[in-house]
Order: sequence, then structure tokens, then C-alpha cells
Amino acid sequence: MNLRLPEGFLFSSCTAGIKASGRPDLALALVPQGASAAAMFTRNQVVAAPVTVGRENLRRSQGQIHALIVNAGNANCATGAPGISAAGKVCREVACILKTKPTQVFPSSTGIIGVPLPVEKIIVAVPNLIATAQSDPAALQSFANTILTTDTRAKIASEELIHKDNKVALVGVAKGAGMIHPNMATMLVYLFTDVEATPRELQQVLRNAVNQSFNNISIDGDTSTNDTVLLLASGKSTVKLKSVHKEFETALFSVCRSLAEQIVADGEGVRHVVRLKIEQACNATEARQIAGTIANSALVKTAWAGADPNWGRILAAIGRSGVAINPEKIDIHLGDQQICRRGMACHFDHDRAHQYMSQPAYEIRIGLGAGKTSFEFLSCDLTAEYVHINADYST
Amino acid sequence: MNLRLPEGFLFSSCTAGIKASGRPDLALALVPQGASAAAMFTRNQVVAAPVTVGRENLRRSQGQIHALIVNAGNANCATGAPGISAAGKVCREVACILKTKPTQVFPSSTGIIGVPLPVEKIIVAVPNLIATAQSDPAALQSFANTILTTDTRAKIASEELIHKDNKVALVGVAKGAGMIHPNMATMLVYLFTDVEATPRELQQVLRNAVNQSFNNISIDGDTSTNDTVLLLASGKSTVKLKSVHKEFETALFSVCRSLAEQIVADGEGVRHVVRLKIEQACNATEARQIAGTIANSALVKTAWAGADPNWGRILAAIGRSGVAINPEKIDIHLGDQQICRRGMACHFDHDRAHQYMSQPAYEIRIGLGAGKTSFEFLSCDLTAEYVHINADYST
Repeated sequence: MNLRLPEGFLFSSCTAGIKASGRPDLALALVPQGASAAAMFTRNQVVAAPVTVGRENLRRSQGQIHALIVNAGNANCATGAPGISAAGKVCREVACILKTKPTQVFPSSTGIIGVPLPVEKIIVAVPNLIATAQSDPAALQSFANTILTTDTRAKIASEELIHKDNKVALVGVAKGAGMIHPNMATMLVYLFTDVEATPRELQQVLRNAVNQSFNNISIDGDTSTNDTVLLLASGKSTVKLKSVHKEFETALFSVCRSLAEQIVADGEGVRHVVRLKIEQACNATEARQIAGTIANSALVKTAWAGADPNWGRILAAIGRSGVAINPEKIDIHLGDQQICRRGMACHFDHDRAHQYMSQPAYEIRIGLGAGKTSFEFLSCDLTAEYVHINADYST
Repeated sequence: MNLRLPEGFLFSSCTAGIKASGRPDLALALVPQGASAAAMFTRNQVVAAPVTVGRENLRRSQGQIHALIVNAGNANCATGAPGISAAGKVCREVACILKTKPTQVFPSSTGIIGVPLPVEKIIVAVPNLIATAQSDPAALQSFANTILTTDTRAKIASEELIHKDNKVALVGVAKGAGMIHPNMATMLVYLFTDVEATPRELQQVLRNAVNQSFNNISIDGDTSTNDTVLLLASGKSTVKLKSVHKEFETALFSVCRSLAEQIVADGEGVRHVVRLKIEQACNATEARQIAGTIANSALVKTAWAGADPNWGRILAAIGRSGVAINPEKIDIHLGDQQICRRGMACHFDHDRAHQYMSQPAYEIRIGLGAGKTSFEFLSCDLTAEYVHINADYST
């Protein structure tokens, strides 16, 4: 794999026996000399224990992290006080071997909800997991594979930037919104870089990047209890973030956007990725609200599944979005073909539109005629396969 | 059909050639001596021409209506100024024959969006439609069948009440949220009564009834551009609404609730109707918001399709509803069996839960532990059949 890792990180993974499938399910990222950290979490009020513990550890360690430990196969959510205690126990075990503080270990979980975390299986696996950590791309690739659940492929993106002969590397891995069978989607994203930065500086660039990437995608409108985006900066490049602020922001945005696209493309049952371009909006907040309403409309998404250029459903979704709009100013384009003009039907080639929408990825452009803001949002179709994946009775 | 019609109404229907299927598609309700009228419309900002014209006619006629004309097969939506003009032309034609004002005719349409209304086909059919109107239950049954689109059955409900030897009849018919292939759902509801009331009195009882019935159901979360609920009161019973206010309110609520249930049960691809009982909420607004979020969650609805007692998805939907909640106080029951206690797993019989959820209709009770308000909301599952119905490419 042609990928340069940021300096200061080691990766490993193993099979601890959490996933029923017997596939690898426990992954570790080590930063022996510590990293500055920033994170963003789900806005769901129901949060998994690792989210509570991870947030608290970041606060208590003042954003200094030595290890990240992630298990797949069990979300450790809706598990009450025993769940919090289990997540803490995992952190203590890792910290004990690394001789750091438990608050410098960041825990993450994804998988089935409401089932106690099999914490003993994790504890038993930790020593060897730490001992076998390596700083090569294959180890990162295994890490990326291990955190998957119903995803069909690993999601990795990277960027490099150069500042006065020094290289800064940034690598991200993600676990997408393929739902945990039979439970819910969780988006986990880990970003590793060797730039030198304070946790506060990282938090600010991370917030911007997330708002322009992961916050602008939707697969089925459900928000997980475990969503986590973590950015770790080892400082090993000796390049300060403030010296390369703009370039780093661009690189981070590029990595986040790539991972966001990979997540949507690998969503459950997804056959078409649709890029919604909202144009002539009054502001980004309104544009996001309109895009989100379109992206979560069952009628729009099923029309996309059938490659049906049904602009009426899009128009109706815009009309119920809660944003004040003037239907008579709305234009809709499918690629270079206009399918709705000023809120009304216009002549277009239906066969060509159907062909265009039969592609795995395409673009729908919506002009609101209201303002000057442009905005992009990534979504997907709703297929019978999605229903099958999520409707199968499992117990 | 064992159904007593309210006095003062005549019904008829015919095939005007609007539906491609060749089935009846034009229906009329006449009130030769006029009726007081009240109506509620879609909250979508994109509204069909008949909604605009109907609202305007009610305003200009001060709520006095002599005829209702409904076509199925074409929504007359996203048709611009020509659409408004077409709806007006239909009203004028009916008014001309009846020798009333066009503003005393109420138009309604449901069907495909963005296609010009074939107004000439309607005009040609109107004279005979008026001439054949009758005041018998079979004519009402035909009316109810004619306004259907992808619905599989007519929706009718009725109530009677007696006041000092006088009978008051109330009959409602509805066209449900079976989507117009290949376009959107529209809910049309017409309520006919011979109580004597002013438009203002009617509007108040109608608003209450709608808020407790049609506003508490969801099939797929999409709001149509044509939704209309119209209440007409001929006064022929000579019983004043204020003399039977409470009884009439109860009867109206009962009819609306029955029609709402029939609409959900006949939703596209629906195999399970789920009654959500939200308990211990702070108020009805919050309870409705929580119920609506659960009812529109693709993950929850697909679990229902699979008869899967997946309480984690329900808990996660509650957590992202926007209402402040305490996960640790949430209890969830499936019928008499508790499946989640204080936001955590509890022991239950999975087979029995699966059996319970395999019924065509059942109940999920959610205790929030926050307040004293109880609230009911009716929803349904999301099946692969729904996707097939709405994904089929049609042009």
C-alpha cells in the first residue's frame, strides 16, 4: 500500500471474540510519546458509554492521548453504569501496560446495542495487542478493516504537505454507516497526523472540517449513539500547525470529505450516491436544512432507487423543509439537463435523465433563486436491499 | 350498505378519462341549498392549484359551498398559472349549471404532479355528473371509490347522534396515503353532516378533530402538496351545533380517527400498523415530536417490517428527536411485555415479542418518566414493497 504514515503512531489489531463472525474486532492506535487530541461526538442524547468516558478522558487529560482502543461487535450502549465501568476498565488495562494514566486512553465501540460489553475478552487481548503494534501501512490497513461491521470495504484517506523540507502526514480511517446488524449505524472516524498543535487548535480545525464533510451526509436520517470523530496530532513532524494552517485545513478537509464520500458509497443497500448542490440559498443553514429534507425523504430516495427523474417529489420535499421558499423560483437540473423550471414541468429527455440517474454517482442541482450561497450535501438512494438488511429478524 | 347519509347532499361520479387505468376519476358532492364549510390544508409551501383556489373560494364565499368536485389521476400541482386557471374553469362550469357563484364550488385534485390538468375532459363530463347526482349510500360509495389512486380500498366512516327526536348524521370519506404512481401521497378527506353551524363554528371543531387524528399519523414522513380536509354542514337536521357541541365533537373525532386508521392501514406496502403510546411526557407537543421521530426513522420502520423487537433503535430515535429527555428514565413495552427498562436491556421473551409484532396491528408503549401527558400516534412499517411501489421507473 502506497501510504506514508504520520510519525509517532503504531497500529495493531486482533480477534478478541466479540464479533459473532469470528472476524478481527479489536484495534489499537498507540502514540508512545503522546498526542494532542480533539474530538467531536454524536448529538444524540442517548450516548454509548465509550462516548461518555472518551469525552471525560479528553477533559481530564487536557487533550493528551497515548492510546486509542476500538472494539467492533458491541456498541456498549444502553448498558447503564456497568457499561461505563466496563469502558473505564479497558482504559485502565491499556494504561497500566503503557504506564500512562487511564484518562490518556481513548475508548471507542461500535456494534450491537443493549448487550453488556464482554470486557474480559478485551482485557485478555490487550497485552498482545500492545506488544504487536507497528508503524507500517499494513498495520493501519488491518486497523481499518477491524473496526468495520456491515461495511463492505475499509475506508482510508491521506494527504501530505511540505513545509520547508519537513513533511506533514495526515491519515484518516473510518467505519461507515453500514448498520450494525441488527442494530444501528455508527460512524467512527480517526484522523492521525504528525503536525504539532495544541488540543485547542486541533478542535477548531476539526470542527470546521466536520461541518463541511461528515455533517453534510445522510444515509437514512438516523443519528447513532456512538458517532465519534477523533483527531490525534503527535507533533513528530516538528511543523507547527500555525505555520501551515491553511494548507493543513485544506488537507484535513480533503481527507474528511473523502472519508465521508466513502461512507455514503458504502451505505447499506446503496446503489446510487447523489450529490445535492443547493444554489442561490440565503445561507448555509437553510441550504443544509433543505438538502437534509430532500436527502431523508423516503419518496425522493425510492425514486432515486428507480432512477426516476421525479422532480415533483424533490419540489414537495423542499416545500416541507421548514425554510421559507418561493416555489416559482425553483429550478432543478439533473447534470446538464433541466427537469424543472420555476417550479413547473419543462420539456426534457426522460430516457437521457433515466440513463444519467442509472450511474453509481451523479449530481442534482437545485437553484432556489433566493440568495447567493452554494452548498453541497451527499446522500444516497433507499433500496429494497436496505429494507432487507435492516428488517431481518435476528433473535 | 347500512349507512344513513346526512340530509341535503347528493353524490355522483364518472369516468372522465383522466386516470390512465380507465377507472372512475371524477366525483361530485352537491348541496343544492348550500352548506357551511370549513377546511384545513397541507402545510407544505408547495401547494397544488386546487388548494390555492379552494382556500380562496372559501374566503370569498364566506364559507358557503354548493358543490365539491374532485378529480383523481392528476394533482394539478406545479402547473403554474395555467393550473390555477384550469381549477377556476372547472369551478365556473359547475357553478354555471348549478346557477351559483364559482366561489361556491370547492375543487380538489389528486394524482400525478407537474402535468397539465386535462380540463376539457372534466368540462365535458360535468353536466352529466350533476344530472346523475343522488342521495343514496351507493352514490357515496362510488364517490369514495372514485377519489382513490393506489389505495386498495375505499375509506368511509359515519356516526349519528340524536337530539330531541332529531337525528344528526355525519359521514366521512377519505383518499389515503397510497402514493400516486409515480408521484406523491395525498390525503383527501371530505366530511358531510346535516348539523346546523356557522363556518366559524365548524372551523373550530374541525381543527380540534384534525389535530387529534390526521395530524397524528405518518406513513413515510412526506407531506403532500394537495392534502385537504373539508367539512360541509347542510343544516338540514335543524339541530344547531351549539346544542350538541360535545356530542358532535365526539362524533367528528370518532369519524376522523377511523379514517386516519384506515389511511395508515392501507398505506403503500404496509404490513404492520403500529400504535405508539407516548406516556409521561411533559406536554403533547413534545410527545408528538418524539412519536414523529420514531415513526419516521427508517431503522425503526424496517425493524417493524421484520417484527424485530429492536428497542435500541427506538431509544436512539427518541435521543435524536430534539426533545430533552433522560435516557435513564425510559421504559418501553411491547403490549404487556417490557423490553427496555430505564434505558437498558431487560430480560424478555424474544419469541413472544416477535409473535406479537407479527400481528397486522399492535401497540408500543413508551414511558418517558418526565411528566403526565399521554399521547397516541399511528404509524406503520417500511417494507421492501413500499420501495418497489415507489422506485418503479415509469416514464
